[in-house]
Order: sequence, then structure tokens, then C-alpha cells
Amino acid sequence: MTRSPGWHNSSPLDAGTSSRSLEVTTRESPPDSVAPVVWFTGLSGSGKSTIASRVCVELERRGIEVEYIDGDALREVFPQTGFTRAEREEHLRRTGYMASRLAAHGVTVVASFVSPYRESRDFIRRLCPGFIEIHVATPLEECERRDVKGLYARARRGEIRNFTGFDDPYEPPENPELTLDTRALSVDQCVAQVLERLGRQLG
Amino acid sequence: MTRSPGWHNSSPLDAGTSSRSLEVTTRESPPDSVAPVVWFTGLSGSGKSTIASRVCVELERRGIEVEYIDGDALREVFPQTGFTRAEREEHLRRTGYMASRLAAHGVTVVASFVSPYRESRDFIRRLCPGFIEIHVATPLEECERRDVKGLYARARRGEIRNFTGFDDPYEPPENPELTLDTRALSVDQCVAQVLERLGRQLG
Repeated sequence: MTRSPGWHNSSPLDAGTSSRSLEVTTRESPPDSVAPVVWFTGLSGSGKSTIASRVCVELERRGIEVEYIDGDALREVFPQTGFTRAEREEHLRRTGYMASRLAAHGVTVVASFVSPYRESRDFIRRLCPGFIEIHVATPLEECERRDVKGLYARARRGEIRNFTGFDDPYEPPENPELTLDTRALSVDQCVAQVLERLGRQLG
Repeated sequence: MTRSPGWHNSSPLDAGTSSRSLEVTTRESPPDSVAPVVWFTGLSGSGKSTIASRVCVELERRGIEVEYIDGDALREVFPQTGFTRAEREEHLRRTGYMASRLAAHGVTVVASFVSPYRESRDFIRRLCPGFIEIHVATPLEECERRDVKGLYARARRGEIRNFTGFDDPYEPPENPELTLDTRALSVDQCVAQVLERLGRQLG
């Protein structure tokens, strides 16, 4: 049998590899190099993506490296993802982990997800030292009145199941970094509030 | 009823938002700014992580921004991930997507995953313009002989199911960028071959 030069089945080698893996994956980078993760949560049609995409444009204009992650667009990459609580939670946790790693490398993340469950959002908060939770607090009635994508009409007709606000709960943030009342504020004003809140973190 | 200043339920606003989301998520960055995704695939115990973690150290020493993603470590973040084909595929696709976004922002990704299915690896290749597939081609008999983690003994005793090489297939890459024969090469030699292959891409 050929001896394998330099390869050992000793546990020290294995232990060394494992500890490195963990160190790399779970280490907290120094606060000044970790970028913010700006997480928009709110009902479907609340205006999350409209504000979030505008915030991205403004950040990029300022020369900031930004990754925009949109719930609808990400579902096009992973079309098999369903809308049960378990599937949504897994989807959010995976997305949050990705956000945390991008932020650890200095990329500012702007994410727009209904993200209805407190537990998933708190999981992401724990992973991301620079987490900024922004509640786009448009009430259900107003979202349904706007019904930009026609989803509320379909949910009313019973054509969609597990629809947040109807037969699936939305658990509002208890202590978000920012709450936006889109009935009182224009898009421009919302964007300005987010940038102002972010300004403190971007320095 | 309060009018919402600046908010419209017109479709142009929605269409604009959606197209931006898609553009940002699926755009291909110019080739010169996309970092490589160095993907190690091979059986459990083949030596993937040993080589991959050493490659990381060498790249960081050269001042390159690196993210190391290790299959075992990532499963500690997502302990609910199982070992069925569907669960592995989902896990790999999610990981590949994360790798593609990190690489798009100039972060070199080094990933060490059994990643037994050709289809999952090809999904990742399609997402990552700088994909470098490295087959750590240690044969099953040699992995079992080393059995660094004691998993082969457990699989032989029937204590583990869906174990790659036993009751779950390993589909070797058909056209990998690099194949490493760890019976003929030392760890140092493997690392050197990877760095040499990478050198062409890093310039």
C-alpha cells in the first residue's frame, strides 16, 4: 500500500481543522469593519421594497458597497421555497446568515422581506452586530387598499394560503431601530429617515 | 381618510421596484471585479478541509479578503439540515448563492463541502462566474482507512444513514478545474497546486 506523505489520521490535525472552521465562521469582526444590515420588515404591499431600493440608490451614490436582497427576487432563485412557517423561517435564517457574512466583509446589506416572525428576525439580529430593524408599519387595511400586486384580492378570494395578515400572523417588532408610518410620510421622507438613522452607524 | 402623500398603487411604481430587485440580484458584475469561488468537493475524510483551510491561510497572508465556508461548521449554524438528497441539495444551493454574492463583492470564497451531486455543483457553477471546482479525489477505501472522524466505522455499523459512498452516491466532477490525488501528494503539495491554479485567476 502506498503511504500517503504528509497525511495523518491523528486527531490533532482534525481538531485543528475544525477549530479553524468554527473560528472563521462564528468570529465577530471588530465593530468598525462590520457593515450595517438594514432589515425592512412589514406586510406585503407596505412599501418596504420601494423604500429599500431607494435607500440602496442613495447609499451607492455615496460610494458605499451595497447588497440589496429582496424577498420576491430571492424566491425566484429558490422557487421551491414555500410559505409555511417552517419554510419561511428556514428561508429567513439562510438569508440572514448570508447578510451577516456580507456585512462581516464590509458590504452594507439592505434587505426587504415580510419576515413576519419575531423569532426569525431575532435570529438574524444575533448573527449581525450591525442589525438595524426597520418596521414599515403600514396597517393591513391600507396595504389591502393599495394592493399593488393584487395579492390581497386573491387572498380574500381564498386563492392564496398562508398569506401574512390573513391566515398567517405578522408579529410586529417590539423594539425596532426605526418605525416608518407610510400614511403620514412620503417615500422621500421615509428614505430620509432611514439615511439619517444609518448616518450614525456609517459615521 | 388620510391621503398618503407620495404613495401610489399604480403599477409603474411596482414594476420599477421589481425590475430593480431583479437587476440587483441577478446582475453579473464585470469579470475583473468578481472574485473566485474555490469549491472543494470529495468524500468525507478525503482531506478537503485540511487543504482548504491551509489555502485560506495562504491567501490571507497575501492580503486577499477570504471567506471560508466549511460544510461541518455551517451545519452547526443550521442543525436542522438533514442528509436526504433534497436537504443536501437545498443546503448546497443556498450556500452557493451566498458564495456568489460574496464573490460579486470581491470576496474570494473557499468552500469545503462533500457536495456529492453534480446537479448542485453545476447550479453553483452557473451562479459563480469565477467557479473553480477542485476534486479531492481520495478513494473511498483510503478515506475509510483514515476515518479521521470515525464516521466510516459508524456507517459500517449502520448507525448513520445517507452516508456518501455507502448508501448515498458520490457523483465525481466530470470536468473539474483541478483534481488532487492525496495518495500521491502531501498536504503542502496539494496547497501549492491550488495556489498555482488560483494564481492565474488572481492575476
